[in-house]
Amino acid sequence: MQTLEQSFTLTQQHRETLIGHPAKVIWMTGLSGAGKSTIANALELKLHEAKKHTYILDGDNVRKTLNKDLGFLPESRSENIRRIAEVALMMKQAGLIVIVTCISPFNKDRVAARNLIGDSEFVEVYLSTPLSVCEQRDPKGLYKKSRLGQLPNMTGIDSPYEVPQNPALTIDTSLHSVQESVSRIIQISNLAD
Amino acid sequence: MQTLEQSFTLTQQHRETLIGHPAKVIWMTGLSGAGKSTIANALELKLHEAKKHTYILDGDNVRKTLNKDLGFLPESRSENIRRIAEVALMMKQAGLIVIVTCISPFNKDRVAARNLIGDSEFVEVYLSTPLSVCEQRDPKGLYKKSRLGQLPNMTGIDSPYEVPQNPALTIDTSLHSVQESVSRIIQISNLAD
Repeated sequence: MQTLEQSFTLTQQHRETLIGHPAKVIWMTGLSGAGKSTIANALELKLHEAKKHTYILDGDNVRKTLNKDLGFLPESRSENIRRIAEVALMMKQAGLIVIVTCISPFNKDRVAARNLIGDSEFVEVYLSTPLSVCEQRDPKGLYKKSRLGQLPNMTGIDSPYEVPQNPALTIDTSLHSVQESVSRIIQISNLAD
Repeated sequence: MQTLEQSFTLTQQHRETLIGHPAKVIWMTGLSGAGKSTIANALELKLHEAKKHTYILDGDNVRKTLNKDLGFLPESRSENIRRIAEVALMMKQAGLIVIVTCISPFNKDRVAARNLIGDSEFVEVYLSTPLSVCEQRDPKGLYKKSRLGQLPNMTGIDSPYEVPQNPALTIDTSLHSVQESVSRIIQISNLAD
């Protein structure tokens, strides 16, 4: 629990009562091309239809904005995740269901995020889609660049991805449909009506 | 307008429709002790009573969390404001009324925040409470420390505060009550029902 300088009257609980559903952080981790953004988008639409208040905190977008000062060496990757976790925490305090999509390759950083956000409100979803499938999809052409030696520190190629130790859910998107994946995430997150 | 890597289906407009009120960033600037936190807290309670969805993004708290890696030299102060503006933007996109409380002493940083967030959704509130009053209040004992030479770069003492050029609202909290200030902010922000 962080000790803050200023404390204000309104808490997460007040905001959850107003909003009418619990706040959560659904943390989606996995390789580039594993399906994080696709599933996040479908998940958000499904939750929005059910009048739930959501935001997708997308690792690639945050890299272009809040974290544009950071690179891709391990230390910067950790700082990237630290900041994403801090923002996710604030958004959760605001009462939102925050869907985080970021590779987040290192166990220690994901554990730190979980500890910061709070175990009971942190839902770790591991997209275990095999590298071969991710590389075939290659939605951003990053694997191709990496294989050509034009992109150093590509996770899965020349930078490690550490498989989550104890995720709430593991989904291989080469075996399960988007809608099936979304339903399982909603169920495991206790967000079904 | 930022160009992002990933674009998702749901927009701020969808979320505003669900929430039932416009999203905003109310940016409160002024010296330490000017009344930012007090007014922010009362403003949030008033908006919450009216079933509006809010979050206080407090400069002092962010300094202990997201921005704990930053110091108080001008460059770090600018980076502090840059990150706060990026987070405020994301929260606005999530549909919230974000109340930012931070000294934000430099014009160029506030202008950058306004440009990032968008002029029509950025409400700059300048708390113009005189330094003598702020120093008398000294809620955190910072002026005392500064006068004793124990706290370098204190805004208003040995670090400048640049008065906003064209704020939406200027309030001297030594002349106006908290409730009066709150009412004026709600009115200027077009958040009255």
